Amino acid sequence: MTATSELSARSIEDLQADLRNGKVTAVGLAERAIENYAAHGETLNIYKTWDPESLRAQAEVADAAFAADMDFGPMQGLPISIKDLYGVSGYPTFAGTPSQMPPKYEREGPVVRSLRQGLATVTGKTHTVEFAFGGVGSNPHWGTPRNPWDADRHRAPGGSSSGAGVSLWAGTAVAALGSDTAGSVRVPASVTGTVGIKTSSHRWSTDGIVPLSPSLDTAGVLTRSAADAAIVFAVIDPLVDEHPLAFLDRLRDLETADIHVGVCDWFFDDADPSVAQAVRDTIAELEKAGMTAVNLDLPTVAASHEIFKRGGLAAPEFTAFINSEMADRKATLDPNVAARFERMEAILASDYLIRKQELEVLAAETTDLLAAVDVVLTPTVAITPPDLEDAKPGDPYLKANMAMLRNTAPMNLLRLCGVSLPAALDDAGMPVGLQIIAPYGEDERAIAVACAFERTLGTARERLGTPPLCSN
Amino acid sequence: MTATSELSARSIEDLQADLRNGKVTAVGLAERAIENYAAHGETLNIYKTWDPESLRAQAEVADAAFAADMDFGPMQGLPISIKDLYGVSGYPTFAGTPSQMPPKYEREGPVVRSLRQGLATVTGKTHTVEFAFGGVGSNPHWGTPRNPWDADRHRAPGGSSSGAGVSLWAGTAVAALGSDTAGSVRVPASVTGTVGIKTSSHRWSTDGIVPLSPSLDTAGVLTRSAADAAIVFAVIDPLVDEHPLAFLDRLRDLETADIHVGVCDWFFDDADPSVAQAVRDTIAELEKAGMTAVNLDLPTVAASHEIFKRGGLAAPEFTAFINSEMADRKATLDPNVAARFERMEAILASDYLIRKQELEVLAAETTDLLAAVDVVLTPTVAITPPDLEDAKPGDPYLKANMAMLRNTAPMNLLRLCGVSLPAALDDAGMPVGLQIIAPYGEDERAIAVACAFERTLGTARERLGTPPLCSN
Repeated sequence: MTATSELSARSIEDLQADLRNGKVTAVGLAERAIENYAAHGETLNIYKTWDPESLRAQAEVADAAFAADMDFGPMQGLPISIKDLYGVSGYPTFAGTPSQMPPKYEREGPVVRSLRQGLATVTGKTHTVEFAFGGVGSNPHWGTPRNPWDADRHRAPGGSSSGAGVSLWAGTAVAALGSDTAGSVRVPASVTGTVGIKTSSHRWSTDGIVPLSPSLDTAGVLTRSAADAAIVFAVIDPLVDEHPLAFLDRLRDLETADIHVGVCDWFFDDADPSVAQAVRDTIAELEKAGMTAVNLDLPTVAASHEIFKRGGLAAPEFTAFINSEMADRKATLDPNVAARFERMEAILASDYLIRKQELEVLAAETTDLLAAVDVVLTPTVAITPPDLEDAKPGDPYLKANMAMLRNTAPMNLLRLCGVSLPAALDDAGMPVGLQIIAPYGEDERAIAVACAFERTLGTARERLGTPPLCSN
Repeated sequence: MTATSELSARSIEDLQADLRNGKVTAVGLAERAIENYAAHGETLNIYKTWDPESLRAQAEVADAAFAADMDFGPMQGLPISIKDLYGVSGYPTFAGTPSQMPPKYEREGPVVRSLRQGLATVTGKTHTVEFAFGGVGSNPHWGTPRNPWDADRHRAPGGSSSGAGVSLWAGTAVAALGSDTAGSVRVPASVTGTVGIKTSSHRWSTDGIVPLSPSLDTAGVLTRSAADAAIVFAVIDPLVDEHPLAFLDRLRDLETADIHVGVCDWFFDDADPSVAQAVRDTIAELEKAGMTAVNLDLPTVAASHEIFKRGGLAAPEFTAFINSEMADRKATLDPNVAARFERMEAILASDYLIRKQELEVLAAETTDLLAAVDVVLTPTVAITPPDLEDAKPGDPYLKANMAMLRNTAPMNLLRLCGVSLPAALDDAGMPVGLQIIAPYGEDERAIAVACAFERTLGTARERLGTPPLCSN
């Protein structure tokens, strides 16, 4: 293992143990992150704001606390990246727009606070799709992060948390905060070969995050493994009252052989064949390890996807936000957003309210349907992430965007939670994510299942190798 | 006092005492209600469903319970009327439409349940404006209840709880359940010379009530006096945990001389001169009794009234309900509603959401402004209730409707609570209500103020006399 692989390869549990026994220091890890940024940061275009001075200063605080035997929990001294949709004290927020947002969007909310109060060190703010409104990951104002799994072509990094997954493979952070309104954590996790947690509707506060769709926005996190995800989840989650390492230990009681999953054909209907095959093969592999699987019909998912195609709840809520607070930024909107704006604005209030009612009914029905299994397994993103040349503004973009979000968006509309776990590489050599869907409120279950599967399948690094552009 | 005046004149406290000491029986009171209905019910067109057999049977249960020394609280054996928007077991719900509503709208919710579990006896279901969408009180399908204060002209009884106030003066009930989305309890209370309580937003469950605007709907009650209102409030209210008579006693600690009110000119701006004068005179009378008054500027009320004029939240929420659940009743809608339907349907989702945001800000600002006083006093309805001949479909109706709701609708949009207390008769001999507005959650304060003022001014019967059409 090279020096620079320390951050991209080692688990949070290991790194934290070494910080405590003095084998590494927070400042040492910060320097590794800074070296790794120097090697990859600009090529991959990961961060909107990268601040090594602040990172070093924060690391010194963490080290001073270690020296004073002060314990701030398992993230103390570990570098994290934060999507530039979150307010973070001392950093400007752009939210993917051409200019800085008003000061109220620079204030930290509970999610950021929980990590910073635990003395995690902030590396900077990762790129996002403008106002988080898109699944491809592209941004015409600041450029689009590069997906490190293709050395030849600029493939989509997934969006809207477009810099989040890349920040992990580049060895700049061990966890990346993202947000997910239709797939914006799970989609980049899936196409970059990282783990992404989509929390249950409103479980984590969205205060301090630029809103896209208050009904659907969820805060979430990307990590390099499911075990890491469990720790970060426990640090942030307001309902977990165990020590995060005890939480992880408890989750490990669940074994793949204990798990009963549903597989619903709808999620495979429009999938690229090699993506579908990779997921089917992974499911077969898990069945060999004792997992049981049944076919499960979920007509409510297709019904909610129809609502999504008509603009769902996000289109009207987003246009309300832009028209009320961000009217001055309308003229500079990403053409991929602007092209849809007039149609989105035209959605009627009564249609919006009827959608909300229909979704309440569909969500309740989904709860009943999911009671038959522990979780449902699907491809997270049903297609190979496209070359950006094939997702240019206009129809190509719209088609790619809808395809990337197809399997994730219904989960937000139905208030479910889930995890995307790296499953395999497809025929193009690009990562394929396994979406683990759990009922509303069963976030722990989804993470426990991901941890069990990870022990069966290996971590992303063990199973997929390293991306050609980050082979450190 | 004649036999028939028992129900229209005597307080709940007195009647309940007599029921307990055997001077009257629940069956006896039911018979009085039935006699009074025979005298006035059809002339005044109060009830959509009047069921004397059921009333007698319920009264027998209440008497049997008295005989067995079972105490169900202060409403045991007392007749109440219920607006035909509430589900009541054993009664059809029409909600002012031409045909019976689906069975789910016949189920009792918590408000009805609290009174029926207390063995109040239900006389029947009072007329309502179709789907409760209007303040005049008219209904083309079932006729419009007659305002008993004008023997010559058919004046508006106020809406949408159009039969509620009339049911009290006619001596058929001692309390009348209504609902208030823009004034539908306070407006009929004001123009019929009864007391009406508008509860704080979502304080009382609206389950079991046909929805008009879920954001704004509130359940409420009309009574013949403020003291009666306090008792019924305490029986229904989920936050009051005292015995209702102890609650009333405690409220009586507040005296008129302790009360500090605000008076805001905006509420008088478009008022009929004799209505404005009646309220100004009443305020002067209360000041003589020691109340202190200051001028209070409330720009947030005017701002929320502007939103109301554009359809507020009720127009889009109502059209969503009709289009999703009641599409088969669109063809038969009251022309006064149908004429506005297309315009209401055309409200955009983003405008609706922006209104909601603006109202949140306005509500918070209003809370701050109201902190300077205990309550604000205004005319409840700023005009003399019109002759229905002057409120015919088209512009005359629209103008009358907006005028009747002008002073009450902003309170729903700002989530406030309040009471309408009979203040005087205007130059046309029609009742004028004094609206007592209190901050969100201060329902008890509003009722305590109403009780204090009532002790200073006299009850409606003492102050206004009896309506010419119900002089029993």
